[in-house]
Amino acid sequence: MAGNKGLTSPQEDYSRWYNEVVLKAELADYSPVKGTMVIRPYGYTLWENVQEQLDRRFKETGHVNAYFPLFIPMSFLEKEAEHVEGFSPELAVVTHAGGKELEEPLVVRPTSETIIGYMYSKWVRSYRDLPILINQWANVVRWELRTRLFLRTSEFLWQEGHTAHATREEAMEETLRILDLYADFAENEAAIPVIKGIKTERERFAGAVASYTIEAMMGNGWALQSGTSHFLGQNFAKAFDIKFLDQNNQLQYAWTTSWGVSTRMVGAIIMAHGDERGLRLPPRLAPIQVVIVPIWRQAADGKAILAKAQEIATALKGASVRVKVDDREQYQPGYKFNEWELRGVPLRIELGPRDLAANKVVLARRDRPAREGKTTVALSDLTTTVQSLLTEIQASMLSTARAFRDAHTHSVSSYDEFKEYLASEGGFFRVYWAGSNEDEAHIKEETKATIRCLPFDQPEGEGTCFYTGKRTNQVAIFARAY
Amino acid sequence: MAGNKGLTSPQEDYSRWYNEVVLKAELADYSPVKGTMVIRPYGYTLWENVQEQLDRRFKETGHVNAYFPLFIPMSFLEKEAEHVEGFSPELAVVTHAGGKELEEPLVVRPTSETIIGYMYSKWVRSYRDLPILINQWANVVRWELRTRLFLRTSEFLWQEGHTAHATREEAMEETLRILDLYADFAENEAAIPVIKGIKTERERFAGAVASYTIEAMMGNGWALQSGTSHFLGQNFAKAFDIKFLDQNNQLQYAWTTSWGVSTRMVGAIIMAHGDERGLRLPPRLAPIQVVIVPIWRQAADGKAILAKAQEIATALKGASVRVKVDDREQYQPGYKFNEWELRGVPLRIELGPRDLAANKVVLARRDRPAREGKTTVALSDLTTTVQSLLTEIQASMLSTARAFRDAHTHSVSSYDEFKEYLASEGGFFRVYWAGSNEDEAHIKEETKATIRCLPFDQPEGEGTCFYTGKRTNQVAIFARAY
Repeated sequence: MAGNKGLTSPQEDYSRWYNEVVLKAELADYSPVKGTMVIRPYGYTLWENVQEQLDRRFKETGHVNAYFPLFIPMSFLEKEAEHVEGFSPELAVVTHAGGKELEEPLVVRPTSETIIGYMYSKWVRSYRDLPILINQWANVVRWELRTRLFLRTSEFLWQEGHTAHATREEAMEETLRILDLYADFAENEAAIPVIKGIKTERERFAGAVASYTIEAMMGNGWALQSGTSHFLGQNFAKAFDIKFLDQNNQLQYAWTTSWGVSTRMVGAIIMAHGDERGLRLPPRLAPIQVVIVPIWRQAADGKAILAKAQEIATALKGASVRVKVDDREQYQPGYKFNEWELRGVPLRIELGPRDLAANKVVLARRDRPAREGKTTVALSDLTTTVQSLLTEIQASMLSTARAFRDAHTHSVSSYDEFKEYLASEGGFFRVYWAGSNEDEAHIKEETKATIRCLPFDQPEGEGTCFYTGKRTNQVAIFARAY
Repeated sequence: MAGNKGLTSPQEDYSRWYNEVVLKAELADYSPVKGTMVIRPYGYTLWENVQEQLDRRFKETGHVNAYFPLFIPMSFLEKEAEHVEGFSPELAVVTHAGGKELEEPLVVRPTSETIIGYMYSKWVRSYRDLPILINQWANVVRWELRTRLFLRTSEFLWQEGHTAHATREEAMEETLRILDLYADFAENEAAIPVIKGIKTERERFAGAVASYTIEAMMGNGWALQSGTSHFLGQNFAKAFDIKFLDQNNQLQYAWTTSWGVSTRMVGAIIMAHGDERGLRLPPRLAPIQVVIVPIWRQAADGKAILAKAQEIATALKGASVRVKVDDREQYQPGYKFNEWELRGVPLRIELGPRDLAANKVVLARRDRPAREGKTTVALSDLTTTVQSLLTEIQASMLSTARAFRDAHTHSVSSYDEFKEYLASEGGFFRVYWAGSNEDEAHIKEETKATIRCLPFDQPEGEGTCFYTGKRTNQVAIFARAY
């Protein structure tokens, strides 16, 4: 498939390709404030669709939304030692407000475990007050030195779930229920296959007992952590005094969890599916699922074709298809094809005078190369064909992404082999692992690859650690990561 | 109607009643950061319902959502002289981030005209790029000395629309289209009648050419500004250089508007409808529209009644009714009745052993006193009866609020009479007005009443200004306001 005019090829310079796609597809723009971004309507609508599908899943599993303050007293963060250590370098601090210097500086939330923990300690008295299953949609700020649109920005949007439970078991069940929910969202809405697993100690959330993750492979073989779910044990309950009387009238500390998916997910969608022609959006999340491009040379044809295009759009809208008619007169059809391919619209309808006369249209799939993706359809069958094609494209994008990931997942038996493959092929490395924290740090220093997770899907038998040579029954996924 | 146990009567102390309702109904809670609040799930769900109904209207009128950064360089605010003057006293300022002092302090947005104006200047080149019809759902910060849950908090949630147009006429049409949209929302979703009008110069948004408002009457006769729509002329376009080539290839400044509704709307709903028993929520926005309270004395009855309650709930959910079964075993039915009345649920279903045996339930309306609001309904008619009652309650709440407002709107012909009525009766004063800015300031100083707006609904003929004695054809609405 030929590339899109003016778009750097992803093979040539993946990072540049990514930035160009984000800007040219009008997903986002740089903002005048260093490290922050503007999410433009097309990118924000994609995020709204992500939100809608996640939010539906949260509510179906008994969660409710709430809103906690943006500002957190510095002293709150200091109550959990690991937490403050992890977040201190990234904090933005309000020192003046209302024309005066504040007595205590306020931190702009980097995450909300502390202030939410404080409120839970006020709300929880008895086991009857548990569980608390609250989620918040919010902006958070983590001051980053090296930023990247959607992937790493000083301010980003996310949801952060914070739950409190009476028992360890319930909190652990919740942590894993959410991980499953995230994986279900990634695969069935974003068409991105993910690997579920647990983070090693080095990569654990600051203050958590255990951090779980879904890891996805991007088009350059790197990993993107696409959602995390943390089992916080009683760490925050002890720091914030979240206590309750249990059924035996004994005072107990609660068990808490936290979990989040952010606007990084938009970056994941771009990089898991994009190609040399630009974005490819999964139909279930695409802001525009179908674009209709009317084609005419003689002005006399224009009016009838535009009217027909609107008629088709109305019919598709009636069937809950998100459709747009590109009726701009200043551009040629070829220009429009390129633009909507760049912007990743899953399905294009071409409508010209000859098609109109024959009561037909041409359908072009974004996920298939030019000829292979084209079919001619009778107008009478259009709605059902569009609906079934959208379903097919969604499924096909997931299986394509899965096949790509599997083809780029290697198993190596020595560190030399690992380094060689990492340099030549990249991708994921599913390897037996019995190393230490220090070994992991050393590998990162030498190769920039990290353990993405210890996947849930572990082998039945033993093998030899590729790095230490020790026998082990544990497998890890190594990769370069964003 | 008797009051709710433990709730201060609104007649006795309206302000205390308000705070108690917010806290006891679990709409919100105080936060440890001065002047900020925690919106609890029940209050946040109400806000989500407000959001959904506004957002639907925005999208139906061609608007799209986007997201702009939280932080704005101080220098941006300074580009529009009136704007910076208006907002300076309320700014929260980030001076340190990532462990370092920032070169230029960043303001936490109090509103986003400036940063959005900057971005529009980058995006707009030609008349074909206009109009831009963008809305943002966001948190904003205005450091307030005297705060009030929902009504005035240092951080609040809102939507802010920012549009840019090629002509003055289009921008003015947009300004008024949104004002109509807000009024339609207030009346048809929140059941709050509003007065549309224009603000006087004193009350105008900092930087606007003209500010339009919808003003609602609260239960104590005070006014609450419930939404504003500003015609910004070319003020911000000139400050941020938003220019475009028009159809004649002439460079022109764009015309912009901005408009917002905030979490204050939740305060409006509480105060427009609440009574001595607590909240009364309009069915279209109520998080829970129907609560089912099962009633039994003998444990043997409990199981069958709970099963029936769940069966009814399932049927109602199937008809898109938001329903909850209160199956808590630790509370008596009377306690539950009080609690759900306090929390404003529009309709209660009581289900006891005798009802069950007769295939009937008792329905109790929140908006009517105890006996008057009760009816017995056969189970077979329940869903249709519930649906029609919810519609009836919605309409009845609007007409009750309108009758209340009209009964508390006075017309006076002298300043003495004005002061006398304001002190004894309160309410709105619809008066002929030919005063100056200074007169308005003087009245505020003496009486705390302000001009809420010059209503669109103006009289046909002339009259005498109640303050200056001059003849005029202009009428103003004066009131005490939040």
